[in-house]
Amino acid sequence: MAKKDVAVGIDIGGTNTVFGFVERDGKILADDSIKTAHYEEVEVYIAALYEKIMVTAHKLGNDVNIIGFGVGAPMGNINKGTIEHAADLPFKGVIPFAEIFNRHTDLPVIVTNDANAAAVGEMIYGGARGMKNFVVITLGTGLGSGFVIDGKLVYGHDGFAGEIGHTAIRPGPSNRDCGCGRKGCLETYVSATGLKRSLLKIMADSLQPSELRKYSFEELDSKMIHDAALNGDYIAKRAFTHTGRMLGFKLADVVAHTNPEAIFLFGGLALAKDLIFEPAKEYMEENLLSIYKGKVKLLASELSTQNAAVLGASSLVWSSREPN
Amino acid sequence: MAKKDVAVGIDIGGTNTVFGFVERDGKILADDSIKTAHYEEVEVYIAALYEKIMVTAHKLGNDVNIIGFGVGAPMGNINKGTIEHAADLPFKGVIPFAEIFNRHTDLPVIVTNDANAAAVGEMIYGGARGMKNFVVITLGTGLGSGFVIDGKLVYGHDGFAGEIGHTAIRPGPSNRDCGCGRKGCLETYVSATGLKRSLLKIMADSLQPSELRKYSFEELDSKMIHDAALNGDYIAKRAFTHTGRMLGFKLADVVAHTNPEAIFLFGGLALAKDLIFEPAKEYMEENLLSIYKGKVKLLASELSTQNAAVLGASSLVWSSREPN
Repeated sequence: MAKKDVAVGIDIGGTNTVFGFVERDGKILADDSIKTAHYEEVEVYIAALYEKIMVTAHKLGNDVNIIGFGVGAPMGNINKGTIEHAADLPFKGVIPFAEIFNRHTDLPVIVTNDANAAAVGEMIYGGARGMKNFVVITLGTGLGSGFVIDGKLVYGHDGFAGEIGHTAIRPGPSNRDCGCGRKGCLETYVSATGLKRSLLKIMADSLQPSELRKYSFEELDSKMIHDAALNGDYIAKRAFTHTGRMLGFKLADVVAHTNPEAIFLFGGLALAKDLIFEPAKEYMEENLLSIYKGKVKLLASELSTQNAAVLGASSLVWSSREPN
Repeated sequence: MAKKDVAVGIDIGGTNTVFGFVERDGKILADDSIKTAHYEEVEVYIAALYEKIMVTAHKLGNDVNIIGFGVGAPMGNINKGTIEHAADLPFKGVIPFAEIFNRHTDLPVIVTNDANAAAVGEMIYGGARGMKNFVVITLGTGLGSGFVIDGKLVYGHDGFAGEIGHTAIRPGPSNRDCGCGRKGCLETYVSATGLKRSLLKIMADSLQPSELRKYSFEELDSKMIHDAALNGDYIAKRAFTHTGRMLGFKLADVVAHTNPEAIFLFGGLALAKDLIFEPAKEYMEENLLSIYKGKVKLLASELSTQNAAVLGASSLVWSSREPN
């Protein structure tokens, strides 16, 4: 029997690194993950990741043929194969990811922004099929974005397009510190971490009781806040509303740049559905210029949180082998 | 002798409407203008504009052959030939510009955003020749923007991409009213009008003497503020610094969307050179994410204020006749 060609899609997040063995049609034959946050040294992390991928490959048996590795990572650069100054990863500075990964394999290693990978996944396998102009916002530990214009992913002049997580939600010095070294970036408000920060702020200002008052900042996660909000917890609900509003406010700016048909929300926070979509939609519409009002769809990704960036990253490998 | 084919490029601004007869190579055979602000009814305005164009054509004599009209206008829509809810024009609502213009002529009338037209002009005839990814910011009565990605102008799903003049400089209710009906838009700070508003604010707060204190808001214009600043007027200089900083702050956001190679400033305010470029460059760099720092060029348009949008608008006509 002929071996099946598969591309390995790798999605590097601040907490987890997820990978999958993907066939050309988007079928994921196997997937697994390692904890990004457990590693301090990038060489050790990459060695562990490669090892885990090989273990998974072994389980798949002899009938798969890996053709390459596609990697989505915050601040991933397609031109250089690097990950540069990613605020949400434990690895600082400019990481020559492809180069280090290629110490383990001679196969092609293609790196891009994780949100770019998710956008490609959404376009090929998800809700953006048939759309020419859309944006994907990934809501994880941080906030990423991928822009598709005229059916093509926007990489920009230096390969770094789509970092709106690091646009300013407001000017001035009195804002939240961002992992990127600046202050008041969108992702300090709109991300799993931003949600926690808003929760603490509201908890500080309010006298309302909350079951979340017994947890430390480190103990809290967005799933707990989500569950509390569904149980009617006032402070948890307020934290979601605030997060959604900040997102909606900024999405009105995004629309004024490239006038997309739709914006897809993807990732952990997007799973909170109405808790995040309702305030985001309301504030986006309220802040949209009249020519855009009622025209831009705010949609949930049709791909699972696990899969979009993995699929998108794997598709980078396929598309690199095919003529334009 | 064979007649010369020319396209008429029309640049509609809040104050003036400029037009030119342009040959394929960008040579402007003749140009003139009418005062947009003098008209309240769009039918009368278009009739007067068409009349003035015909008078100019007559002066050129019989050796030119008009092949069509390209129009750059705030909120101009390429898909529909309309101008929609333009805050800086006297004509409100949705104006079917091409349709009204075609009551006077059967030739093609192509409408787009004035900043889009300027961006095309810069790409074909100006400083962006050879660039694939850049942004043009037009600083006139309002603030317009045109995005070029991968060598193509971005129109967006509804034909309205590039309206960053109406992105929020800051959230909250306590900000400047914008002509678009919203508050705190970028163009309420960064435009000829924004400069005047900042000047008055600084004049109100400061006790410094200024020759500009004897002029009313209506009497003031950006040229007077420019001249005063060059003469060392403290308040005029502060107004330029503030305007430049607000621009630079926002340009850092623009870069995080599409990662351009360069941003071109075009229009009246851009002529103030260092007065606007220095604070803009400083604040842009200060607010850029590290991956972009020192990489994005902030440049003056290489086309004259009169010409860029006229050239760009005329090129719409030529490109509509040619295969892609």
